[in-house]
Amino acid sequence: MDKDLVIGIDVGGTTTKCGVVDARGTVLAQTVVTSLSEDVNDFIATVAEGLGRIIEEAGAKGRIRGIGVGAPNGNYYTGEIKNAVNLTWCKTGTVPFAKLLSKKMGGIPVSLTNDANAAAVGEMTYGAARGMKDFIMITLGTGVGSGIVIDGKVVYGHDGFAGELGHTCAVRDNGRQCNCGKRGCLETYCSATGVARTAREWLEMSDEPSSLRSLDTITSKDVFVAAQEGDAIAKRIFEYTGKILGRSLSDFVAFSAPEAIVLFGGLARAKEFLLEPLEKSMNENMLPLWRGKVDIVFSTLKESDAAILGASALAWEL
Amino acid sequence: MDKDLVIGIDVGGTTTKCGVVDARGTVLAQTVVTSLSEDVNDFIATVAEGLGRIIEEAGAKGRIRGIGVGAPNGNYYTGEIKNAVNLTWCKTGTVPFAKLLSKKMGGIPVSLTNDANAAAVGEMTYGAARGMKDFIMITLGTGVGSGIVIDGKVVYGHDGFAGELGHTCAVRDNGRQCNCGKRGCLETYCSATGVARTAREWLEMSDEPSSLRSLDTITSKDVFVAAQEGDAIAKRIFEYTGKILGRSLSDFVAFSAPEAIVLFGGLARAKEFLLEPLEKSMNENMLPLWRGKVDIVFSTLKESDAAILGASALAWEL
Repeated sequence: MDKDLVIGIDVGGTTTKCGVVDARGTVLAQTVVTSLSEDVNDFIATVAEGLGRIIEEAGAKGRIRGIGVGAPNGNYYTGEIKNAVNLTWCKTGTVPFAKLLSKKMGGIPVSLTNDANAAAVGEMTYGAARGMKDFIMITLGTGVGSGIVIDGKVVYGHDGFAGELGHTCAVRDNGRQCNCGKRGCLETYCSATGVARTAREWLEMSDEPSSLRSLDTITSKDVFVAAQEGDAIAKRIFEYTGKILGRSLSDFVAFSAPEAIVLFGGLARAKEFLLEPLEKSMNENMLPLWRGKVDIVFSTLKESDAAILGASALAWEL
Repeated sequence: MDKDLVIGIDVGGTTTKCGVVDARGTVLAQTVVTSLSEDVNDFIATVAEGLGRIIEEAGAKGRIRGIGVGAPNGNYYTGEIKNAVNLTWCKTGTVPFAKLLSKKMGGIPVSLTNDANAAAVGEMTYGAARGMKDFIMITLGTGVGSGIVIDGKVVYGHDGFAGELGHTCAVRDNGRQCNCGKRGCLETYCSATGVARTAREWLEMSDEPSSLRSLDTITSKDVFVAAQEGDAIAKRIFEYTGKILGRSLSDFVAFSAPEAIVLFGGLARAKEFLLEPLEKSMNENMLPLWRGKVDIVFSTLKESDAAILGASALAWEL
């Protein structure tokens, strides 16, 4: 039988999603395993066991062409994961993840990159960026990730770590402290945690009534729900977030002149509140030649499948 | 005889430099013609006449493989120049420059791009970036231009206008007004005119003695000479310029993870005053993974030849 299927694996801090995918982007079988091993070999064993199950379930034995993995701090060139603070088995040091997994899976080739790059390949292969050769993927989750596609190829850079747009500077003076050690990073304002942080700061700064005040801890989802219910502060928080994101996007456009920017992730669900201020600020801050010409597109992939599809798309290139 | 030579043309606002170049980057013959025609056809005729002379002089008849042109607002995809405010014959509207020149030159193929992209190709082919596949060229002249090379190829983007890093935002609040209509553009701080502007602003803001006060008009060269003579304000101006440039470069690194940034242009001559503050601020503002790993390189091309070589290098790709 032809090797007509691939596997996509999305490695997260707590759980890892695995799926068998066909050429049309259908997830034939999927499973979720824990990421919380102390040792990488235990984790590889857990993943292999999960893959064995879904390969069986999908009738995919002997048909797997390759495995694509999206993981934090994953390096496409080396297949390694390095200093990934959110992964219990790779907090410090370097793990040759692609090599270990390939060996465990009887030599099936494994391609690895960071999660945002995988998402970009996924959008290009199956999603909103199908047919596009130049676009920038921005993932608005716990952090802000990015995958840059130029002339149909993901940009990996000299060292395999290109596309860290979440750590470009959004606010130069007195910017927020970022986990990376720098100040003012885009991620401290325009991620889910950034939105929650804005909410906490703003609620402290005024006495304006808000339904958010009744909550013990505030998440970006709470802010979204409050905005939908008409809460004025919550709506202004998204306006502010959109404004900051838009002006950063304008600088990204000056770099690679993409035809579109694709937004993905939890925060992208707040499209109704984010899109207008975002487009306004992006267009105001761009050179006239690009105004009104760069589309803001929201991911069209089913959220539950997207991570697997993104990673699996890498495997077709193997 | 083989077609073993190319022509490089650097179109500037006042003059246009043309040269016949061999594969090793030797300029065999060159000439400078005026750019100040009112009509593009007159300008093409002037250029063609100049080319005729240097082709004759270099014994290059029948040996020209192609012509490369670097011009403001030049579009690689279309071969057009568009709304180039500094060109008398193309202030508004679009000129199909590559097509017109090729026709006038009996069908010799013509490739065209903007001047900074041409400079990047020149550095990659003959200069400081030889052997590099991922670098960013920054030209510090009257304005700030940029040419981005990823995986050995210049980034043109969706529309042919990628790499306008001089118009990314360096100062978010109360930034300087730029000719492009925006505020805070990198170019308003880190070009030759930006340096002169800083000098004027700073001299007005204090009574500190400076040799610059005796001048009617101040150029970046005056500031450079004053700094060399130990003038304290002049030295601080370069420190400030380096600091602003360095933090912008750190964001560019987050985009494409280049192995080096190549600096070129009049202001790059002030290396002795710029380099240290620039490297310091770039490294402070980068993610830890890149600190100390991205080289700042200064162009090694002879300045009188560089513009011609850059443009000519394009022609080898024809």
